[in-house]
Amino acid sequence: MAASTLLSFSDNPVFRLYATYASAVVLKMTFVAFQTGRLRMGRKVFINLEDAFGKKELVRRDDDIERVRRCHLNDLENIPSFLVLGLLYVLTGPSVFAATWHFRAFVASRFFHTVAYLTPLPQPARLFSYMIGVVTNISMAVQVLMNGQL
Amino acid sequence: MAASTLLSFSDNPVFRLYATYASAVVLKMTFVAFQTGRLRMGRKVFINLEDAFGKKELVRRDDDIERVRRCHLNDLENIPSFLVLGLLYVLTGPSVFAATWHFRAFVASRFFHTVAYLTPLPQPARLFSYMIGVVTNISMAVQVLMNGQL
Amino acid sequence: MAASTLLSFSDNPVFRLYATYASAVVLKMTFVAFQTGRLRMGRKVFINLEDAFGKKELVRRDDDIERVRRCHLNDLENIPSFLVLGLLYVLTGPSVFAATWHFRAFVASRFFHTVAYLTPLPQPARLFSYMIGVVTNISMAVQVLMNGQL
Repeated sequence: MAASTLLSFSDNPVFRLYATYASAVVLKMTFVAFQTGRLRMGRKVFINLEDAFGKKELVRRDDDIERVRRCHLNDLENIPSFLVLGLLYVLTGPSVFAATWHFRAFVASRFFHTVAYLTPLPQPARLFSYMIGVVTNISMAVQVLMNGQL
Repeated sequence: MAASTLLSFSDNPVFRLYATYASAVVLKMTFVAFQTGRLRMGRKVFINLEDAFGKKELVRRDDDIERVRRCHLNDLENIPSFLVLGLLYVLTGPSVFAATWHFRAFVASRFFHTVAYLTPLPQPARLFSYMIGVVTNISMAVQVLMNGQL
Repeated sequence: MAASTLLSFSDNPVFRLYATYASAVVLKMTFVAFQTGRLRMGRKVFINLEDAFGKKELVRRDDDIERVRRCHLNDLENIPSFLVLGLLYVLTGPSVFAATWHFRAFVASRFFHTVAYLTPLPQPARLFSYMIGVVTNISMAVQVLMNGQL
């Protein structure tokens, strides 16, 4: 087995890249979660009675908060897939060049998607960033499948 | 360490199987996401004002689209767990036979679950397919636990 | 490569710990899913017409069931990230001591979060448990990043 297909920080630069981008995109998702909390506290808009200092009228809906939650849900639809596909893709032994650009494309697309969703930017900014992430995931999935068996 | 517990495409047929089924079920989930987008564009039913060509009246709700979204959410509740449990299960060194059937059962159950949800098929078709996926995940989790320590 | 950074049940106690806690927290999440199903059947509150024995009036909303669903969604926002960050963290070669406490803190925080959400306990019980999980994930992400490269 070539060193380049080991999941090793010391021996595999492609894995080292993957680990970095994977952590960065998870931290980005954590920022989205914190944004929801920050808006809920700042605007006093809550979803559970026990969060609302017992004031029923503060259990209500806010369009901006729902927007952040949709952004978060879109992250959940894409980022866990990337995290696992990326790891499997590392194990197919791609070149550092190909791997770098897959990871960069995905992670940049998700950072831009968050900006586009929360600003919000006019479409097709968000659609475009979303599609780059999806295409990157599909590309990695296909490369994994070409190394697999049924 | 036996070769059969390595995460290696070239040396471990069980891992090769896992990688294939994992990618396939992620691609299936991507199809569900595309189905949401296709229906939103086709029916002009949007969830953000910037998606709706600036027409407020197109920001609305559609029962069929909510159905696809529930199907997607159920995927999110089950597939990431499978992706990680499956990887850990590979590392317990199961037989090719046992692993094949675990992966096939899970992935077939999720494909069938999608068909049952989106058609929709009469119950208990969807419940049954959902339960097969959950039981497969529990089986893998238990086998991982039996190899673990606290 | 030191034995302690292998993903191996037989050779790496830190991996063995990770695998145990990862499986346990996935099983906990499965319990939350079952709780939703149990309440839906017990209270006859359904979200799809085909689940409701064809009775339209049983397709309705229940505050307690929505609460369980929010608890589940919060799991989805945190647990898949833990599963992947934990695996990458194992590969950084932490001490058994540090790893044990990271895994215990995260998994205990999620068990307690579920109890706090479903009881419900007065705040800040749920917020506190949520934050412990998030901080553990951030700590692991930072340690992975310190071993990574761009």
